[in-house]
Amino acid sequence: MMSEKAKQNILLTPGPTPVPEDVRRVMAEPIIHHRTPQYRKIFEAATASLQKVFRTKNPVYTMAGSGTSAMEASIVNFHQIGDETLVVEGGKFAERFTDLAHAFGLKPVVIKVPWSEAVDPKVIEAELQKNPNIQSVCVQLCETSTAVLNDIEAIGKITSKTQALLIVDAISGLGADKLESDAWGVDLVIAGSQKALMLPPGLSFLSVSEKAKDRMKGSNIPKFYLDIKLYEKGLKDWDSPFTPAVTLVIGLLESLRKIEKAGIENVWKRCTEYAAFTREQLQKLGLQIYSKAPSSTVTAARVPEGIDGGKLVKIMRDEKGVTLAGGQGSLKGKIIRICHMGAITKEDIQKGISVLGETLEEMKMTAKSK
Amino acid sequence: MMSEKAKQNILLTPGPTPVPEDVRRVMAEPIIHHRTPQYRKIFEAATASLQKVFRTKNPVYTMAGSGTSAMEASIVNFHQIGDETLVVEGGKFAERFTDLAHAFGLKPVVIKVPWSEAVDPKVIEAELQKNPNIQSVCVQLCETSTAVLNDIEAIGKITSKTQALLIVDAISGLGADKLESDAWGVDLVIAGSQKALMLPPGLSFLSVSEKAKDRMKGSNIPKFYLDIKLYEKGLKDWDSPFTPAVTLVIGLLESLRKIEKAGIENVWKRCTEYAAFTREQLQKLGLQIYSKAPSSTVTAARVPEGIDGGKLVKIMRDEKGVTLAGGQGSLKGKIIRICHMGAITKEDIQKGISVLGETLEEMKMTAKSK
Repeated sequence: MMSEKAKQNILLTPGPTPVPEDVRRVMAEPIIHHRTPQYRKIFEAATASLQKVFRTKNPVYTMAGSGTSAMEASIVNFHQIGDETLVVEGGKFAERFTDLAHAFGLKPVVIKVPWSEAVDPKVIEAELQKNPNIQSVCVQLCETSTAVLNDIEAIGKITSKTQALLIVDAISGLGADKLESDAWGVDLVIAGSQKALMLPPGLSFLSVSEKAKDRMKGSNIPKFYLDIKLYEKGLKDWDSPFTPAVTLVIGLLESLRKIEKAGIENVWKRCTEYAAFTREQLQKLGLQIYSKAPSSTVTAARVPEGIDGGKLVKIMRDEKGVTLAGGQGSLKGKIIRICHMGAITKEDIQKGISVLGETLEEMKMTAKSK
Repeated sequence: MMSEKAKQNILLTPGPTPVPEDVRRVMAEPIIHHRTPQYRKIFEAATASLQKVFRTKNPVYTMAGSGTSAMEASIVNFHQIGDETLVVEGGKFAERFTDLAHAFGLKPVVIKVPWSEAVDPKVIEAELQKNPNIQSVCVQLCETSTAVLNDIEAIGKITSKTQALLIVDAISGLGADKLESDAWGVDLVIAGSQKALMLPPGLSFLSVSEKAKDRMKGSNIPKFYLDIKLYEKGLKDWDSPFTPAVTLVIGLLESLRKIEKAGIENVWKRCTEYAAFTREQLQKLGLQIYSKAPSSTVTAARVPEGIDGGKLVKIMRDEKGVTLAGGQGSLKGKIIRICHMGAITKEDIQKGISVLGETLEEMKMTAKSK
């Protein structure tokens, strides 16, 4: 079904990211039933290994769903209707927290941050001092739409002293940008399978601190499929409340073994090096790095004046087999994004950026000749 | 990672069911991004093919999640808080509708049906006449936990004359038991990937009739991840509101092609023949068929007096490589269930039942010698 061209594709999007061949292979084995000792063993080992990537002793729950399902779980299980939540809004995925808060009857208190910038932790501190009713702070580790990295360590120091839960969307960042969930006092860490965990999309994850667990008791927001109490009960004997995405969990264990073998600190280091390399190469092409607080997950660069960013991405993908991401929301057509996490190699990045340079030249020539 | 033993496993559980090798192979190809013409084309073709299996002209929405996520979507998108819903409760999955109704502030009106029996449509008719406030009727096509088939055609004739929506959980039944969504007037059909669609778990589906769509407007139950309005918007250009489970959708198209090639009527016919064969073989072993309204999806048989059903399933699975399902809820240890849908062959069933007969003999001998 896949064409030869697709096979030669270099995928540099911030999710899905390339899935290593051996991970794909174990997922292609004959399927097994989930209520068997064989599956429970895999799920138990994968969960233990996930905790190492999350850097947490807290339970990590695995759900069948997109990353947004775990974002929703962080809202509906740990708040009461009418709760105020502080949302750091600096990109498309940050806005999703605001949307979720509205959808479930919370009152979002929004800190607007320019899309190219990280939030100033002092602004969060001031907001929490001003408003002691705030029950949680929602922020991205890496905001995928802008390639901005927020200083979670500094924010954790602030929230730890308050009643507010720190909710971190690490969907794209986990396993690429450094995150010390326990040491930094992060209460809820949200992740997805299709980023640095090198899997297809379809699994979402949520780690839950003791402070967050306490908050569950009073939660009165209706929920069922994403009710963490049910997942908590299931985890006691490595079961899931609903049929788990068996093959993805089997792949998860395989990809986590790779991360564990390399060591998570080394993985962060590699991503940070590749990020620096990516910025350097993009700057050599004369492009301006978009984010003022660049992440190790993904890099965004402004598309040169007079170039249609959407067209650029399309030409590179359809004619040259290199898939980058364009901009989202208000950045549509204005930036390109190159990912450097998971199984993406330095060679992939180099080749991708070389094709980018080539395509930009061609587009400039065409523009001139018109 | 999988042992040789697992490869020889005969999987006869009512989900996950065996995934054909070529379906596994396409899912193991290098992953592609979902916001590309390549993926949109696959998603469009898969959705069109799904409609043929659902026997509907209505839109079919695909979500990343277990079957329960589509059950939840059928509740939260098409009701108002306080709505009365008529739940036909004749098994473990029927009870899930009651749980969902409670979780989201509906008032379930429960028709208790003995677990081995199909609901009498006249009882539904009487209930709807008695209580014109009922907004929906929730019922299983095949109740997986009891192997009972309900008469959806007869129920549809009743609900079509009322304001009540007919919500059918066809998670296990779709593609095995005959279901004519449009002709029978089913408003919401719920399905999952890991049954007759021959895929791993991780996708859920919901078809929505015009009558149901009208009901969406007034819905005031909080929702976001399972908000059908967002999926409706996405479907306009073959997009999903949240990252789709790309590889599973790619596999879906492949398995739907198989179903389309065979013809859905022939698939129903084959499942019905295999079901009759299964009942016949089980009766030859002296076992009593549990369901008084047997389905073409799965067959349940009572475990003989003095035999521990849990132990039977365990011995067959761990020592003989044949995985059957046991009973759930109040039927735990009391029945065994053999599935005959999807890629399960007559030879698999024959071999499985032969191992069942052998194991029962051994267990009886051991019991006697004690």
